[in-house]
Amino acid sequence: MTDADTRLVATPAGHPAVEVRFRVRYFETDAMGIVHHASYITWFEEGRSAFTRAIGYPYSRMEQEGIALAVAEVSARYHQPARYDDEVIVRAEMTQLGSRGMTFGYEVRRGSDGALLVTGSSKHISIDRLGRVTLFPAEMRAALSR
Amino acid sequence: MTDADTRLVATPAGHPAVEVRFRVRYFETDAMGIVHHASYITWFEEGRSAFTRAIGYPYSRMEQEGIALAVAEVSARYHQPARYDDEVIVRAEMTQLGSRGMTFGYEVRRGSDGALLVTGSSKHISIDRLGRVTLFPAEMRAALSR
Amino acid sequence: MTDADTRLVATPAGHPAVEVRFRVRYFETDAMGIVHHASYITWFEEGRSAFTRAIGYPYSRMEQEGIALAVAEVSARYHQPARYDDEVIVRAEMTQLGSRGMTFGYEVRRGSDGALLVTGSSKHISIDRLGRVTLFPAEMRAALSR
Amino acid sequence: MTDADTRLVATPAGHPAVEVRFRVRYFETDAMGIVHHASYITWFEEGRSAFTRAIGYPYSRMEQEGIALAVAEVSARYHQPARYDDEVIVRAEMTQLGSRGMTFGYEVRRGSDGALLVTGSSKHISIDRLGRVTLFPAEMRAALSR
Repeated sequence: MTDADTRLVATPAGHPAVEVRFRVRYFETDAMGIVHHASYITWFEEGRSAFTRAIGYPYSRMEQEGIALAVAEVSARYHQPARYDDEVIVRAEMTQLGSRGMTFGYEVRRGSDGALLVTGSSKHISIDRLGRVTLFPAEMRAALSR
Repeated sequence: MTDADTRLVATPAGHPAVEVRFRVRYFETDAMGIVHHASYITWFEEGRSAFTRAIGYPYSRMEQEGIALAVAEVSARYHQPARYDDEVIVRAEMTQLGSRGMTFGYEVRRGSDGALLVTGSSKHISIDRLGRVTLFPAEMRAALSR
Repeated sequence: MTDADTRLVATPAGHPAVEVRFRVRYFETDAMGIVHHASYITWFEEGRSAFTRAIGYPYSRMEQEGIALAVAEVSARYHQPARYDDEVIVRAEMTQLGSRGMTFGYEVRRGSDGALLVTGSSKHISIDRLGRVTLFPAEMRAALSR
Repeated sequence: MTDADTRLVATPAGHPAVEVRFRVRYFETDAMGIVHHASYITWFEEGRSAFTRAIGYPYSRMEQEGIALAVAEVSARYHQPARYDDEVIVRAEMTQLGSRGMTFGYEVRRGSDGALLVTGSSKHISIDRLGRVTLFPAEMRAALSR
């Protein structure tokens, strides 16, 4: 996925969101012939990465500045399986932003027909290099809440 | 992990459970220096595998008989991180058994001090080779509910 | 990665090749802070996938027709590490095509400056659903050798 | 895998080696129904980890002391596939030890019948925290060459 495959979208609830589009890789499948359920968790993460790039404050910059977004919770519901070579669209929507953390919601759809494959959410806590919960820096928070 | 590292345990709620013990692999870590959050989801699965072996009806046999346990939901809460080379103990407990599905709960602890690292759960649906929801065969259900 | 990120290229040796471009995902890194060495092996595979799509005979179609490309050998040399969020370019070049197998060569470069990160190769054997070595079907071979 | 599943072995060439034994995890498989070829590369790494533990100088200690073993090359030949739930035995043999690097050879066998599944090798360079090639500390070298 390159930035050309990412776009900012409006959500019904008015939350900021991005959609990224990519093809399923073979190694993401398992012996059931479908995408392994843990692979979607890594796609959620890729959606968050694209979100931070789209708002102009990439996660890689956060890390350079000593802030990590520790994963506190993750959940997923599996509706239909994705398969190798499917083009999928992952929507990552920031559903809540606090001073020390944030929540994301996710939808994974099949590109060919828009079928809903997986939904999910994750909660994140801002921590510093010593692992202590910390406030988002002002500039980061401004970018996140734009 | 071999079977020598697996043991059946009693849970406070009286559910059948197993505990498996293994070391964190390097590739399971990420650039934060800790285990990647999706790796625990694969450990939950390894707990389920060990559970089915321990009850005498391995998941590999279920597959040979045409039954798959599709993952319908998964969730995890992250308390403390595991690190490379840590010995961890994964407990998988069957918290609910129906005629066409089951629910598992999980606890991941650090072997050295018993610290609770991650908790979680998953729901599974029994499907046949055509992907249709199906009843567990009688013998499988007997093994699962023993 | 979508098809928009793939392009057919000419190689000095005149072999058919494609280049695909995508960003490093966080879960592909390890505790050294760089991309785990096994992740590049999955990128080689993604290069092969893109190659088969570019020639009009996607690997997903091969599988539907009962042909699998079993991996017989793989090798990689690591020159410089890729890091999270880097844009990388994977070139997959079909260096040899036989009646029952093929060989690919790979180059992984950093998108920002073209630095060579990893080189490698892989050999593949055409097998049928029973795992027997088999000839490529005529149409597939025609597409591959175009 | 726990340390109980690891043992030091003698090799015909007189090189130090360890064998580790564990079961194939479901997520290590792919849509071909067999273990994905990149998974063996992570098993090689697990063999190296076990090797360093067995000699009394775990890789986790090397890292704490500021030494990393960067992977310079890896290769694998695939003879027969492993499948989910198979017990496999991974032998990691240190075939060469220099002042700044080392080479390992690998054999993966199926536990049930000893069938040879995969062979391979890897080369490693000792680097410090700044990524510079560095001598192994004397104590580490002594442990490695014992």
